[in-house]
Amino acid sequence: MSLRGKRIAVIGATGAVGQEMLGLLARDGIPREDVLALASARSAGTELGYGTESLVVQDLETLAGTVAPDLALLAASSSVANEWGPRLAARGSVVVDNSSAFRMAEDVELIIPEVNGDLVRGDTTPRIIANPNCSTIIMLVGATPIRKAFGCVRMIASTYQAASGAGIEAMDELRVQTADVLAGKEAKPRVFAEPCAFNVFSHNSDVDAQTGLNVEEQKMIEETQKIWGDNAVEVRPTCIRVPVMRAHCESLHITTRDTVTLKGVIEAICGGAGLRLVDDRGANNFPTSLKAGHGADVLIGRVRVRDAHSVECFVAGDQLLKGAAQNAVQIACCVFEV
Amino acid sequence: MSLRGKRIAVIGATGAVGQEMLGLLARDGIPREDVLALASARSAGTELGYGTESLVVQDLETLAGTVAPDLALLAASSSVANEWGPRLAARGSVVVDNSSAFRMAEDVELIIPEVNGDLVRGDTTPRIIANPNCSTIIMLVGATPIRKAFGCVRMIASTYQAASGAGIEAMDELRVQTADVLAGKEAKPRVFAEPCAFNVFSHNSDVDAQTGLNVEEQKMIEETQKIWGDNAVEVRPTCIRVPVMRAHCESLHITTRDTVTLKGVIEAICGGAGLRLVDDRGANNFPTSLKAGHGADVLIGRVRVRDAHSVECFVAGDQLLKGAAQNAVQIACCVFEV
Repeated sequence: MSLRGKRIAVIGATGAVGQEMLGLLARDGIPREDVLALASARSAGTELGYGTESLVVQDLETLAGTVAPDLALLAASSSVANEWGPRLAARGSVVVDNSSAFRMAEDVELIIPEVNGDLVRGDTTPRIIANPNCSTIIMLVGATPIRKAFGCVRMIASTYQAASGAGIEAMDELRVQTADVLAGKEAKPRVFAEPCAFNVFSHNSDVDAQTGLNVEEQKMIEETQKIWGDNAVEVRPTCIRVPVMRAHCESLHITTRDTVTLKGVIEAICGGAGLRLVDDRGANNFPTSLKAGHGADVLIGRVRVRDAHSVECFVAGDQLLKGAAQNAVQIACCVFEV
Repeated sequence: MSLRGKRIAVIGATGAVGQEMLGLLARDGIPREDVLALASARSAGTELGYGTESLVVQDLETLAGTVAPDLALLAASSSVANEWGPRLAARGSVVVDNSSAFRMAEDVELIIPEVNGDLVRGDTTPRIIANPNCSTIIMLVGATPIRKAFGCVRMIASTYQAASGAGIEAMDELRVQTADVLAGKEAKPRVFAEPCAFNVFSHNSDVDAQTGLNVEEQKMIEETQKIWGDNAVEVRPTCIRVPVMRAHCESLHITTRDTVTLKGVIEAICGGAGLRLVDDRGANNFPTSLKAGHGADVLIGRVRVRDAHSVECFVAGDQLLKGAAQNAVQIACCVFEV
């Protein structure tokens, strides 16, 4: 894949996801001159690494007075996305937005290239395309090959989510708080309401008073239905934070429509794009946060078939890469068919 | 509760669970003279804390030449339990064994006092009574009130298990390895095959080549069926380690026999012994590893009822206390009806 020759703006370049986007573009050989690193006025002038070179962050507002880029990768808040997404699309950019602002909008495609990339392939019409939530992406890269082979009527998911999903500040908090606890000091939560060092706690997003679902869980439910084009599939997520840096794990229980066999499931998984089977029962070698971290693939293992209509498995994926920056860049590659 | 007046041997006193047992006995006001702290010859002479006092560890073999204690709390390996359990029971002791050696033996009761304590209440016949696996105990203290009210046909569980389940060495490894990683050094796994610092990994017990279940999962399945006296209940666990010290969390999806309502489930939980509801949706206050750590209760929260026959919830319990030492002491209190 390559986006060479395109002029690309990365909006929210100083954030955890924005920096990963720059890393992917640099690795892809996009010349520094073709990349605009943008952030809020407060961050303007910051120097960011770009491969072996560096880039100076510019005030997002400067974008108002320049030619619209071919591609805008948005890794900012929903409010920034709401302001800049439509503006840039109207001026001719293909906008890939990592926020939740447009994911459920009827006229916006929500894309995981391995799952429904065909919806956008080769269509360079200026518009907004939404990048799904990280937990949704990692779950569906694992579950889609199983669904394709056997159908899926219900999926129960328990997540083991990294600090990175809450940004650089959360990753720093995990580091600092852990060092404090090891030194016998009290943990001082700032980003998360709960202490994050040596702790497991329910996802920090708001919880609906009626359903009891937090926002992360609600996203996993509705995004899965949209991406799979199946409003009947029942998704039952429980989203939990664990003290790891940057990869999410998920324990999945999939109820299939058709009769399954372990052999059939393994074959389906091995044919899955962006998915790597790590499932050595004898050696106790299975997906872990660290094995998935900094890698492009979603890992899947602990695959079990204990009755004719259910599959259990464990998936792991880098939250910042496949869960965010990498998926966004892959969407752009689909659009420009590169 | 009190076991005052009984002569009590703690076998495996230097281990993580053994030391918690001593702590509970000291807090209960059992005089130091009535407690024998026993371990392997290698540990004999070690001084252990006993409340504000201390106890000197004696070689387990010295037990051969003394009067059998009224109560023997075994917190040692299965091989030690196999050797000493039957011997002590034959000589007149009530033996409460924390290993897996006798749990599934037909003539041995497997007890969680809040669930099936009536089976042993007041029966001081010298014999072996088995203490269940920690993950089983914490799951069933949470799920039993729901089962009592609505029946349970299936339970899907994903665990978030602390290092303590693998002993003091594992807790030390988590501490040392985490400090190493923070200092930029490489993690050096010794106790666990996988790095444990900032990582999530499948439980370290052996995995069955046919079923794909690890030993921990197998225990949760068969122990639940025995304790509930229900071989038809389907238990589907996925056991996972997380980098926390001493409390296990579990995400549960319970399929009920009867129609459920959220109100009914909450009422059932509030009537559950040893169980505390922590479920404030507005304040995002739910069970965490740290809230459960060092506490006697199992915490339950994130309670959701999304269809007429299923309940989702999240439980947390101290692995060394309710998951091991405390449950064993509670069994003894049941037996001696104190």
